[in-house]
Amino acid sequence: REMVVCAEEVGKAAQRFAGRIHQTPVITCQSIDKIAGCKVYMKCEHLQKTGSFKARGALNAIQKMKDEGTVKGVVTHSSGNHGQGLAWAASESNLPCCVAVPRNAPPSKIEAMKSYGARLELCEPTHKSRQETCARLAKDLGYRVVEPFDDPNVICGQGTIGAEIIEQVPNADAVFLAVGGGGLASGVTAYITEVRPDIKVFLVEPVGKDLAAYLKNGKLTTEKDVLDTIADGIRVLKVGKNCYPILKKACSDRIITVTDEEIRAALKLIWTRTKQRVEPSAAVPLAGLLKVSPSELGIKNVVLILCGGNVDLDFIP
Amino acid sequence: REMVVCAEEVGKAAQRFAGRIHQTPVITCQSIDKIAGCKVYMKCEHLQKTGSFKARGALNAIQKMKDEGTVKGVVTHSSGNHGQGLAWAASESNLPCCVAVPRNAPPSKIEAMKSYGARLELCEPTHKSRQETCARLAKDLGYRVVEPFDDPNVICGQGTIGAEIIEQVPNADAVFLAVGGGGLASGVTAYITEVRPDIKVFLVEPVGKDLAAYLKNGKLTTEKDVLDTIADGIRVLKVGKNCYPILKKACSDRIITVTDEEIRAALKLIWTRTKQRVEPSAAVPLAGLLKVSPSELGIKNVVLILCGGNVDLDFIP
Repeated sequence: REMVVCAEEVGKAAQRFAGRIHQTPVITCQSIDKIAGCKVYMKCEHLQKTGSFKARGALNAIQKMKDEGTVKGVVTHSSGNHGQGLAWAASESNLPCCVAVPRNAPPSKIEAMKSYGARLELCEPTHKSRQETCARLAKDLGYRVVEPFDDPNVICGQGTIGAEIIEQVPNADAVFLAVGGGGLASGVTAYITEVRPDIKVFLVEPVGKDLAAYLKNGKLTTEKDVLDTIADGIRVLKVGKNCYPILKKACSDRIITVTDEEIRAALKLIWTRTKQRVEPSAAVPLAGLLKVSPSELGIKNVVLILCGGNVDLDFIP
Repeated sequence: REMVVCAEEVGKAAQRFAGRIHQTPVITCQSIDKIAGCKVYMKCEHLQKTGSFKARGALNAIQKMKDEGTVKGVVTHSSGNHGQGLAWAASESNLPCCVAVPRNAPPSKIEAMKSYGARLELCEPTHKSRQETCARLAKDLGYRVVEPFDDPNVICGQGTIGAEIIEQVPNADAVFLAVGGGGLASGVTAYITEVRPDIKVFLVEPVGKDLAAYLKNGKLTTEKDVLDTIADGIRVLKVGKNCYPILKKACSDRIITVTDEEIRAALKLIWTRTKQRVEPSAAVPLAGLLKVSPSELGIKNVVLILCGGNVDLDFIP
């Protein structure tokens, strides 16, 4: 019987990893407020353990498995942040970890996965190769698979960000977040729409994802399964099957599409104004906010989720 | 009668600009603790108004002038952070500001000075040209000069960082800071040696400054007046005459010299581990810490001052 993603389960996740996951700070910046035309609160998940929110879902999933029985090890497929999150969470839990990594993953993320003690297995940068490599490793090693975004325990772990936002920014009227596979998006959306339905959640996507059409028809408009975008954390095209209904119900009419150029511009603003060295995906929500008129949407206090800060040293936006 | 730099005057500076200057946060990072071999607290002056501690001294100096009489405008010479600090403080105080800027100043710092409304006058990158241009502007415009580091009011403004450190990190046993002209160094040192003499202040300098010999003999070992170092915020070779006696008395045997390579390595650590996009000068204290053995020096809890975060977008450490 599969667990349902809901505020109660998100609350259990928060209790499960309390003290081992940072309650990340929320920062503000007057010059960004002025440019955006509303009060902007930035939830700093780039300051989370492992440099991204992925540590939350990974640790929740592993801890729940351990609470329920014996686990020999964990395996996943990831181009970066989920792999780091899982490698760290496994190491925290004294479990071995193996990650199927597409060949085009950023070097800094590959290095970080290794530094947390994960064994890496390179594969092709396609959904099929990632899934097949992961499944083979799981079978050969007898490890449990922790999917990057479609595991309900991972989704509930990411949803704890929503709980913290409500506590830290009680006057929030909107949340903007980047959507890739949908784990963060659906976890936060499920929690917020249940507990604070007055807060509007906006999904910001890179050009080519066509999320609005996908949520409407349930079919992708392309044969590809990864996008070519500067925001390497959200390259995956399809949202998970457990994420899909949550996003379809709550966010179908709140999708904003941004170009790489707009992401770069937002990233430059964050780097220069806040001095926070976030990764491109983390600038996607600001890029989305800068495309809309907050006053026309009735938005006065918006929370942007800065999802991660794992970026190569020689990267220039 | 010139004011004496002391804890009381530092306290007055803090009151003078209360609410207009940030009490910057102190951050920690487990992986840096491990590498350094002690607990490391980083005082985030890169998150100060204008992106560096210079806003403190500039606002204190301007506010004190205004409290004491009529001011027509302010002028200084600066390759960056002090110019930004003064331009911002002048704009906050509704005063015009003019800055003599050496031609080799970083573009981002020049842009920022302009954005705060300062009028810029380019000059040669020598102490002589900077001073002469500044003096000429002061005379022609009837503006008051605010020296970058040798003005006692500027020194007391920077000293407020010392007061905050003692409040925020009561268990500190050492402070590491980068020394350029000596305004930050002498302000913080004066405050801490008076109020908490048990805390040791270490000065970290770039190779070629030869501060130990200079403090001993009162003479520079070179004819140059600027250093060629990656840490552009501390290129000035000589420390101010008001800074000199404070540093000579308290820090003569606590000077650590670091190379550009060591500064780069420390900068990479800060960028990748803390996700804070600080400027090269801000990595100098960590570079110094990594050269010593904290346990041999009896250091358990060290505060590093991250002095600024104004770095060009295309800079790679």
